[in-house]
Amino acid sequence: MVFQKEIRLNSQAFDSIIDITNEIESVVKESKIINGIVNVFNVGSTASITTIEYEPGLIKDFPVFLNSILPRGGRYTHNDTWHDGNGDGHLKSSLIGPQITCPVNNSNIVLGTWQQIILVDSDNKQRTRRVFVTVIGE
Amino acid sequence: MVFQKEIRLNSQAFDSIIDITNEIESVVKESKIINGIVNVFNVGSTASITTIEYEPGLIKDFPVFLNSILPRGGRYTHNDTWHDGNGDGHLKSSLIGPQITCPVNNSNIVLGTWQQIILVDSDNKQRTRRVFVTVIGE
Amino acid sequence: MVFQKEIRLNSQAFDSIIDITNEIESVVKESKIINGIVNVFNVGSTASITTIEYEPGLIKDFPVFLNSILPRGGRYTHNDTWHDGNGDGHLKSSLIGPQITCPVNNSNIVLGTWQQIILVDSDNKQRTRRVFVTVIGE
Repeated sequence: MVFQKEIRLNSQAFDSIIDITNEIESVVKESKIINGIVNVFNVGSTASITTIEYEPGLIKDFPVFLNSILPRGGRYTHNDTWHDGNGDGHLKSSLIGPQITCPVNNSNIVLGTWQQIILVDSDNKQRTRRVFVTVIGE
Repeated sequence: MVFQKEIRLNSQAFDSIIDITNEIESVVKESKIINGIVNVFNVGSTASITTIEYEPGLIKDFPVFLNSILPRGGRYTHNDTWHDGNGDGHLKSSLIGPQITCPVNNSNIVLGTWQQIILVDSDNKQRTRRVFVTVIGE
Repeated sequence: MVFQKEIRLNSQAFDSIIDITNEIESVVKESKIINGIVNVFNVGSTASITTIEYEPGLIKDFPVFLNSILPRGGRYTHNDTWHDGNGDGHLKSSLIGPQITCPVNNSNIVLGTWQQIILVDSDNKQRTRRVFVTVIGE
């Protein structure tokens, strides 16, 4: 059995982090799939998907870290060519990756108590994000 | 067909690396699934899953590298708030990611000869880790 | 339904990037699967799979970035032991990860307009790469 749904979210850019766990849980419930997996995929090249303990400290620390290895305002050939200033955001997203696949067991996503599914928006302007969710199982 | 099993392991923290390939292979055999995929998911926010050539050199090099970009004992807002001192471990795990999905072909996990599935424990105290394994296929 | 196929590609090493989107699309078409997922897995420990906007700027920027955190020619215990000089390539690949799982909808891979599936070869000599593709769905 396969169930698919695209969800849309407004994000704030500059490595801001959105907790999307509830949205993904809703799709899993709607799918009626009991056991299997859920694939969460960011459509686009300047945002990424991973998990984190979603608490105010780490929500600050992760962007600080990302900018320590890929500074916003650094020199990127991408920016020299396209003048859109988001070269760092592209590279951060390629590094973290656009997707995660989580287990679904007994109709719930298997996650730690302090583990949430997040979208990291590393672009430099606010936009609507498309997240494509696929639940596969039985 | 879906088969799921949680495995538990004792890990040593501080970015120590455990080769979990044999444990995952055992779950694949038990599943009786011949062709498909296996999703390996760390339940929790301070350990991650990836692959590496599991040999003594890289087992030293990977933690050294992780600490070069995310120093243990560095300044993290997470630590200022919670005083548990594992902010670096949370960020390392979000960066690497909590999961991997590998192909299963002819009842075997498809891996290179020098490629093993590993859990990286980036917390700062020893604990029991939960790894949730889902095999899907036919 | 499960469909699997291994594809082979010649890569150039030194963090060179190959756009493999067309190859993966071909496997999806051949599978006749309409809706589901496609798992793209690099067999081996010195190359990785992710997505990027495949344009000449970022194709230069990503290797530059990878070498800023994991310098080729740096000191790695792996190289001290094996003298093959590719310790940085192993670590880059473990960091990025060997695989991606993308949604398949209406017989197409769901990707952004400016988002391509890539293989990053971080070894230090040219070789033939094996990418194992699994399509699951209905």
